[in-house]
Amino acid sequence: MTQRSVEHSTIVLERTYDAAPARVFAAWSSEEALLRWACPGGGWGGGIDRLDFRVGGGERSWFRPHEGDTYVNETVYLDIVQDRRIVSAGVMTRGDTRIFVGLLTVEFDAIGDNRCRMTVTEYGAFLDGHDVPANHQAGWGKMLDNLVEEISRQRAAA
Amino acid sequence: MTQRSVEHSTIVLERTYDAAPARVFAAWSSEEALLRWACPGGGWGGGIDRLDFRVGGGERSWFRPHEGDTYVNETVYLDIVQDRRIVSAGVMTRGDTRIFVGLLTVEFDAIGDNRCRMTVTEYGAFLDGHDVPANHQAGWGKMLDNLVEEISRQRAAA
Repeated sequence: MTQRSVEHSTIVLERTYDAAPARVFAAWSSEEALLRWACPGGGWGGGIDRLDFRVGGGERSWFRPHEGDTYVNETVYLDIVQDRRIVSAGVMTRGDTRIFVGLLTVEFDAIGDNRCRMTVTEYGAFLDGHDVPANHQAGWGKMLDNLVEEISRQRAAA
Repeated sequence: MTQRSVEHSTIVLERTYDAAPARVFAAWSSEEALLRWACPGGGWGGGIDRLDFRVGGGERSWFRPHEGDTYVNETVYLDIVQDRRIVSAGVMTRGDTRIFVGLLTVEFDAIGDNRCRMTVTEYGAFLDGHDVPANHQAGWGKMLDNLVEEISRQRAAA
């Protein structure tokens, strides 16, 4: 019998952006924006097959190192409050193996007129030792830093 | 603007049943069994509209006090390992209002030949103050105790 295990882990990350909540929220609902900031980097390939940003809709994205299996992330949006909150559940597979299931909550809080504190909470169930929380902590940290650059680019272009 | 909030909470409950994991697992995948044990009790009405127990399938159930709004629970199964594990994401609404989103992991571990330790982990996002973790802690406690009776009934009938 295959060895089965679940490692539970909660990751909470907070960032403050120099932009109103509406602008930061928009970076989560635009395929073009997501392709710029929500990728692991490090020379990995990746793409978005489908983005249907509404409650009951979902996103399917993938990424792949130079060699090896493709990672696929399938997400369903469970709650969306415009400019305030996004809650989604997702499953990550590597090849044919489910390696991770998680619940993601993203909250956008206005600070004064033109700043936003964003809180990302990922509740994760890491399956059968195929993935570990440290990967997600590092991945989210990198992506949220990318998002700082994304917001800066937008301000420069405005 | 409506006041928005998310209260995060993790509930972990563990029970040991005098039955093999396959028997305890089966009580989660049978509509007849769920109707016996997975209900809040206390004179509330309730039912299951749909049960499609497979990865990507889901369950839709409801319950209602004597007077007042109906609570509806819509769940999607994200990972199922026969007799070992069930992972699902769910949304609860009261009337037209989403009040809770959660990720549920149920693990079944054999203890010797004919006992099962079951661990239920609910990662919850309680929305806008409409629901509180204490309700879920009490509800799950009651249901998992019902499940003891369900398993005993099965043993008596066997």
